[in-house]
Amino acid sequence: MALELEDGKAVFVEDAWERPEGGGGKTRVIANGNVFEKGGVNTSVVEGLVTDAMRKQLNIQGHKWFACGLSLVIHPYNPFVPTVHCNYRMFELYDEQDNVIDRWFGGGTDLTPYYLFEEDAKHFHLIYKTVCDGFDKSFYLTFKKVCDDYFVNTHRGTERRGIGGIFYDHQKPSEARDVNFWMNFGKACGNAFTDAYIPIVERRKHMTFTPENKHWQEIRRGRYVEFNLVHDRGTLFGLKTNGRIESILMSLPPTVRFEYNYQPVAGSEEDKLLQACLHPKEWVSEQEIDAETWARKVNSC
Amino acid sequence: MALELEDGKAVFVEDAWERPEGGGGKTRVIANGNVFEKGGVNTSVVEGLVTDAMRKQLNIQGHKWFACGLSLVIHPYNPFVPTVHCNYRMFELYDEQDNVIDRWFGGGTDLTPYYLFEEDAKHFHLIYKTVCDGFDKSFYLTFKKVCDDYFVNTHRGTERRGIGGIFYDHQKPSEARDVNFWMNFGKACGNAFTDAYIPIVERRKHMTFTPENKHWQEIRRGRYVEFNLVHDRGTLFGLKTNGRIESILMSLPPTVRFEYNYQPVAGSEEDKLLQACLHPKEWVSEQEIDAETWARKVNSC
Repeated sequence: MALELEDGKAVFVEDAWERPEGGGGKTRVIANGNVFEKGGVNTSVVEGLVTDAMRKQLNIQGHKWFACGLSLVIHPYNPFVPTVHCNYRMFELYDEQDNVIDRWFGGGTDLTPYYLFEEDAKHFHLIYKTVCDGFDKSFYLTFKKVCDDYFVNTHRGTERRGIGGIFYDHQKPSEARDVNFWMNFGKACGNAFTDAYIPIVERRKHMTFTPENKHWQEIRRGRYVEFNLVHDRGTLFGLKTNGRIESILMSLPPTVRFEYNYQPVAGSEEDKLLQACLHPKEWVSEQEIDAETWARKVNSC
Repeated sequence: MALELEDGKAVFVEDAWERPEGGGGKTRVIANGNVFEKGGVNTSVVEGLVTDAMRKQLNIQGHKWFACGLSLVIHPYNPFVPTVHCNYRMFELYDEQDNVIDRWFGGGTDLTPYYLFEEDAKHFHLIYKTVCDGFDKSFYLTFKKVCDDYFVNTHRGTERRGIGGIFYDHQKPSEARDVNFWMNFGKACGNAFTDAYIPIVERRKHMTFTPENKHWQEIRRGRYVEFNLVHDRGTLFGLKTNGRIESILMSLPPTVRFEYNYQPVAGSEEDKLLQACLHPKEWVSEQEIDAETWARKVNSC
């Protein structure tokens, strides 16, 4: 796997698990590598009866539900290498005769750097814009905005956990965009992960860093914890519906710091990252895309 | 202050703050001391209009609300010194003519050790039993159980964040127990903090510890974060109602670790603590109380 190759030391260890109520999954984790301090991939195929709590919290109808999905999170050791997260899933509802009565797709990939390198941000967004454009020219801008609006620590105003990417949810198949369309879109986004992330890791993983850089990374990881435990819908749903707890909380960063009222110095590199989290940018303008896409094509020839 | 004396290095630094909607408070924090790695005391007197969200989430009526309270949390550096938390508060509701239509008191103090010393647990619970007994012989057992039932990471089954103490909520003044009774009870519990906690700090603060002990403390601190961000009613209410975020999250531990599926070795000291968190004990039996109370009285002569 590309992540193991990139790390050079750590290998994924797999736990298979079953869910008493139906279904199961695999959790593959990586820890204490040369590059990746903690990370994992969850795949799951689960089903169950729709409970009253689900009817209320999720505003859904039906007798049975079915869900399958993949989620991935990587927390690198070096503060100059960003954390990355992706999640792609399908949810189905059935009536008492086992007919599908509703079905939707969701997913996305987002980047959480600790220091801002504009070329990394542009590269990451460009990859997903390119994937999106292959399916619908309106997708990238729409799904980028959904992502910017979702990963917000609203208890800290407009502060995002990172610099976004794309995110979509509740996409129901239609005549124009059927089940296969959404399956293929999810697959294409998932497959783009390596192109989107690995070149950034390669550029940053050998950069030397100070204890102050690591300190800042751990402060920002605290915001990652805040988002995942206070706001993330998937995490909260799992915590409250008897999900496998260690798989759900696999996403939490390995070492974290919480300091009272910590503020980076105005104008510092740390502040530059914070400002990017407070004020989302358009990382790829049409002109830049054309130039960069062209450059990539030339480079890959 | 007793905590500064006990630390010998760190002093409390104070931030006064105002709330745009009405009222304000003081946050006093201590950090990087000889003994205390992070801690703070919040006092607040706040008021506002009852919103629809409050009516729904808190199931309350009325036009205006008023709340005052004190909360304290201390995270020591040495893993053999327990974390302690206490919170005492009063909440009032007013109608449009500014008449009080409802009022209740709540509070409690609980201990979160990383290693279990039975004499510390007994001492801590004995102090609060003694305070409770001075007001009502039924209080200690009742409020200990409320505490054991409240500080649970329900997403991890029956695992508590620590070994409890006392906790009470929604105590409305009656003829038998009027406003003064509950004010005095809260004060007495608050004043008992020094007797309950400082002797434990004195016994443990000079114990030498290994990196493995610190590692375990940071793992358990992760559970503290999970409880505060996922379950704690006060924290969640503050996060969702424009509370002063740095004061609310002051309670989070300074350095924290999240590892995938970490399990202590069965029968180890770490496991002994975990078992005490999974299965709450009666730390003070009537017989022991008599003997210990007697011994304390003799010692204090």
